[in-house]
Formats: sequence, structure tokens, C-alpha cells
Amino acid sequence: MDWTYLDNNATTSIDPQAVEAMMPYLTERYGNPSSVHDFGGQVRAAVEGARASVAAALGCDPSEIVFTSGGTESDNMAVRGLLAARDRGTQIVISAVEHSAVRDLADWLEKSGREVIRVPVDAAGRLNLAALEAAVAPDETALVSIMHANNETGVIFPAARIAELCRERGVPFHCDAVQSFGKLPLNVRELGADLVSISAHKFHGPKGVGALYVRRGTRFRPWLLGHQERRRRGGTENVPGIVGMGEAARLAIESIAVETGRVRELRDRLEAGLLAADPSARVNGGGEGCPRLPNTTNISFPGCQSEALLIGLSERGVAASSGAACSSGSLEASHVLRAMAVPAAAAQGALRLSLSRFTTDADIARALETIPAVVARLRALKV
Amino acid sequence: MDWTYLDNNATTSIDPQAVEAMMPYLTERYGNPSSVHDFGGQVRAAVEGARASVAAALGCDPSEIVFTSGGTESDNMAVRGLLAARDRGTQIVISAVEHSAVRDLADWLEKSGREVIRVPVDAAGRLNLAALEAAVAPDETALVSIMHANNETGVIFPAARIAELCRERGVPFHCDAVQSFGKLPLNVRELGADLVSISAHKFHGPKGVGALYVRRGTRFRPWLLGHQERRRRGGTENVPGIVGMGEAARLAIESIAVETGRVRELRDRLEAGLLAADPSARVNGGGEGCPRLPNTTNISFPGCQSEALLIGLSERGVAASSGAACSSGSLEASHVLRAMAVPAAAAQGALRLSLSRFTTDADIARALETIPAVVARLRALKV
Repeated sequence: MDWTYLDNNATTSIDPQAVEAMMPYLTERYGNPSSVHDFGGQVRAAVEGARASVAAALGCDPSEIVFTSGGTESDNMAVRGLLAARDRGTQIVISAVEHSAVRDLADWLEKSGREVIRVPVDAAGRLNLAALEAAVAPDETALVSIMHANNETGVIFPAARIAELCRERGVPFHCDAVQSFGKLPLNVRELGADLVSISAHKFHGPKGVGALYVRRGTRFRPWLLGHQERRRRGGTENVPGIVGMGEAARLAIESIAVETGRVRELRDRLEAGLLAADPSARVNGGGEGCPRLPNTTNISFPGCQSEALLIGLSERGVAASSGAACSSGSLEASHVLRAMAVPAAAAQGALRLSLSRFTTDADIARALETIPAVVARLRALKV
Repeated sequence: MDWTYLDNNATTSIDPQAVEAMMPYLTERYGNPSSVHDFGGQVRAAVEGARASVAAALGCDPSEIVFTSGGTESDNMAVRGLLAARDRGTQIVISAVEHSAVRDLADWLEKSGREVIRVPVDAAGRLNLAALEAAVAPDETALVSIMHANNETGVIFPAARIAELCRERGVPFHCDAVQSFGKLPLNVRELGADLVSISAHKFHGPKGVGALYVRRGTRFRPWLLGHQERRRRGGTENVPGIVGMGEAARLAIESIAVETGRVRELRDRLEAGLLAADPSARVNGGGEGCPRLPNTTNISFPGCQSEALLIGLSERGVAASSGAACSSGSLEASHVLRAMAVPAAAAQGALRLSLSRFTTDADIARALETIPAVVARLRALKV
């Protein structure tokens, strides 16, 4: 089938140039980076080259980059690594709309007896900064973990302000930037967080590899023990993945100035077209004073069920999502939309459409033709 | 440079058929396995196909396989997952010669206040079973984690006997089979362990992916939280890696009957030739009643320093190791050879040569020409 892929917040295609960069490390350059011999040494050099590329993309020093197996590991490693090293405070502060990698961990830590404060968002998806300010206390808060941009709505949180607030109170701040990196210019010094998670497959790199930025001087304990990654993450390096991630980071930064505007224009055209075709449709998240990622729209079609909508679209070759791919198969409305107090009928008919630099005019035209037709058919069938 | 690669216990070349199997998932089939749409569904099917292949290779049910990012994660997940779920016993029993993935974790747990018992080995590298028997106590031992075959010497431990002993006492047993899988026929039911770790890049699969067998009914707590892998390991699946691992497992099992004998013959020829060329050389591990992996020899050249030997060999295009790749750069003699009470002069001149099914007669001939020459030169230089 010829697919129109509008599910780039779930995962992206690998840039062919990133695959090309990986190929030598999937074939003839298979040495172990830890080896004394030069056959391993040339591979070590490739890993360090990729580290420099990721560091350049994030605006930090290569020594501050730790490669991981992906966003979930980066998030887990960040939260657990900060907690293990922290000698002040026991509470954890997150937002009510974190990705499940942070949310599930926080739930588990809460069950294990830790206090977790979930900072609410408003109807537009904006973080309640007053509530955050009230929550973070120097001697009580062990860490703050708040995402940069929401994966379901694309709403961007003011990371620099959160970082400033945390710094003033001496509380470490982890920022999950898995959805924003590659879509927005992102400099970790400007972001101000102590730790930042990213994941290659969200920006046209391979699955199975991610990174954690650890600001120099951050008190942090490794999670996967071993000598690799300067003793911060054990295990033989995923060399092809790391090389692919380095190249994908370079390509993302290279294209961002041009692509952000083009993608935003496509997203806005798609959103406007869908709203025009269905007066009852509504966009979840964003609006005045509430910036969103340029590639994401979350739009509800009341009277439809998300899953039926996704299946109907899939049958017609349009790949979309009802929120996090990670909640597929679940009938419960998204925790993000619930936190935004989206009415139940709208939340149950929510569709997340997410574009990328590989999205074309033709994709948008096809989506604008297909989505209203599927919505109409479902409404007629009352499913 | 044209390399003679004799460092297969550090990492292996990816079988070209495994790379071929991966390619669609590095290019056009990039969907997220968790997606509702069929573009993700076809990718989910590929992951499940790979799981069936790995399960068939291990002789278990696909539902008992959890994919991870590699051997270190599998080992960490096993030990931590058993500990978190265990309500009886606090001691941990390991061998004195575990891979650093288990050893570093045990050291850390010990520092955190847990008792760790390290079962000794004899001069041949054989596990002291009487000591193991004395160590494992139903109400005191939380878990036993002992490797199947040693990565530095190739010595094989009697996993089935260890498993029986543990089962009798109601203590869970994790077996790190990272070095044995693909080199020996391995059936987890016969092995008898509750958890078994394997890593793809040790058997001609890609780096960055591994698996943990979790016997059905084992009390076990996930480590990386998330809905994937039946809630036992969170994070978007490393699809190309998993597909490559499935194919590599199939190929390893397919070739094992023929290749084991051929590889053993090459290893024996290499070992005999090196011993004949240098009367002071000695093999570390193995011997009467002490089976070894067919691909591994650990041989000491007293009066040489391992690192100088490795660099000299590297200059001549022979890739070898002084033990675990993971201890490269370290001047301390290997913990494995120390546990075997290998005399210091011998331990400091130890060379690990490890073959694979891609090792040729020509590789052995070149090694037999090069190694004695480098040894002689180092002895002349007294380094």
C-alpha cells in the first residue's frame, strides 16, 4: 500500500543519509569500541564522531552526552540517576501530561512510598506555572522532570523558566525533549535543564538509540553499570545506531531553518481544512500565548471513536494516531486530554496528526480528502 | 588493512543474511509496532517473528522472551528484577569470574549493604560446586547469578546442576549465557535456569540488542517501565536490531552442528601451534573434566605484557584481546585469571583468541606466523 504517513510523533522514517552512514558499521566495521586493537579503535572513533555531532546539535560538550537505548531509557536513567545521587528532598515534581516513560516511573515510585506532585495544565495545555512554583521547595523536592513539548498536542512548555525556578531553589531539573529535538532549534544551555533526554527515531534516526545530556557537575548516579560511556552507561555500544543518530542529528539541525516553516504551513493547512470540513471538530491544545510544535495537531471529531477512526484511515492508507502510540489498544481517553479537561465526547474522538520534513503537499491533500470521508462514514454508522 | 579477526568473544561480524533481513526495517518499514494502523502492524508482525525465532533457538515459548538493548541490560534486568520481586532471602550468590555486567552490579549492591557470596573456581577455572552448595540457603539466598561459559577462558559451568541445586532450595537462578549461545546447542529447559541472558552481537547479530528469557511463572519485576514487551520492558522496540537478532539466532542454530566441530579443530590447531612455538606458553582454563567453548583459547606468554602484545598484533593486522574487551586499557590482570590463581607473570602476558564460524584456515595460519614473532620481539625488547 502507498501510505500517507502522519504519525511522525510515534516514529519517523530513517533519513537515507543516516542509513548510509550506518552501513559500514553494520558490515565491515564491526569491531568493539573498547578493544585495544585498531580494528576496534576505528569504531571507537566513529562513536566519538557521533557524540560530537549530537553535542553540536544540542550546544553542549561531547563529554556531556551519554548514549542510551532510547527515550524511555534516557528518562528512566535521568530520574533514577538523580534520585540515587540526591541527598536533599524526597518529593518528585512532574507535569500531569508527561510521556508514559516518566509517568509510569513516577506512578511506580509513588507506590513505593515517594510523594509525587503532578503540576496541572489548563484547557489549552499550558503548564500552570504558579502551581509549579508552589510545588518546588529546596528541602523537599528531590527533582523536577517536565517535558519540553507534549507528544500528543505539541504544546511547548517554557523550559527555560522552569529551569530558572529550579536553579534558584537548588533542585535538579530533567527535561524530556524527545518530541522537540529536531523540530525546534534546541540549545541545552538556553534550555537550562541539568539533564535532557532525546531519542533518535523521533528525528529520522534509527530506533533503539537515544541520548541523555548530563550537564557537567550534575550529581548523578549511573543506572546500567559498566565502564562504557565514561562509566555512566554500561554495555557494548550500539555502534550502527549511535552513528545513525549522529548523522540524523546533523541532518535535523541542517534542515531545521527551512523545514520548520514549510512543515508548519502544511500543518496549518491540514488543520484549517479539517476544521472547515467539520464544524464540530476542535483542536486540542495551543492557541493564543500557547506555542506548539510546528508539526503536530491534535483534533477531535465528536461522535467518532478514535480507534474506529484510526482503523478506517489505515484501510485507506493514512497512518495516524489517537495520542501516544504507546496507548494504542487502550479504550481509555488520553491522560493528556483528560488533564486538559477536554469533554469526554471530544477526547474519545481525538486524532493526532504529526508531520515531518518528508511530508509532502500530496500527503496533506490526501489527508484532507480521506479524513472527512472516514469521519462522515463513522458518524453515519454511529461507531 | 586486511584483518585476521580473533576477537569474537568481544564482538562478531554481522552475518550478511542478518543485515539483509534488517534492511527493510531500516528503510521503508519504519512504523512503530505499537501503532493501531497496519503500517505499524506489519512491523509488529516482524518483531513477533523474530521473537519466535529466538524462542525456537532457545527451546522456549515466544512469550518467555523479552527483548532488551543487550547483554548488560539483560543481566542488570535479571538481577534487579528478581531482587525486586523476591520476598525471601537477601544474599546474592555469584561466581568469582562473572562478566562485569553482573560483577559490577554485585559490587554496587554490596556497597549498598547486601551480602554477596562469590563462589570460587579452581586453577582450571572449574566452579567449586561444594562451595556453591554451602552458599545457597533457602531463607538467606535471594538469587543465584552464574554464567554459562566464561568469556575469557571459555570454561563451561554445569548450569543444569546449578539449576537443580537452586530449584531444590527454592532460589531463583539467572544464567548469563551471552558467551555460550550460538557456540553450543543451548536449550533453556535443559539448562534449567529461571532467567537466561543472551546478546545478539556475540552471535553474528547486531550490537544494541539482546534478550532475556524469563521462565513462565518466575516472580520478576520489570526494570524499564512501559507497555511494550508485555509490560516487561518499556521503550519503542529496536525493530531492525530485533529482526537482525532473530535471523542471527536462526542462522546460528542452523550452522551449529557443522561449525562447532570445524571451529574446535581450528582452535585446537592454533593452540597446539602456539604451545609448540613457545615452550613457556600455557593455556589458562580447561583440561581434563573441564569443558570449554570450542572457539576460545586463553594463552599466556610469560615475560610479555598483554597490552604490548595486543598493540604489536594490531600493527600486524591481528585483532585479539587480553581478556574481556571491557577491561581494555586496564593494567590490572584479569579478575578471572586472578580467581584461577594464575601466576602473575603468566596472567600479565595473557592473550585471548576467540574464533567464529567466519574464521578461516588462512586466519589460523596467519596467527601462527604472527603471534610467535610478536612474542619473540617483545621478549627481546623486554616489554
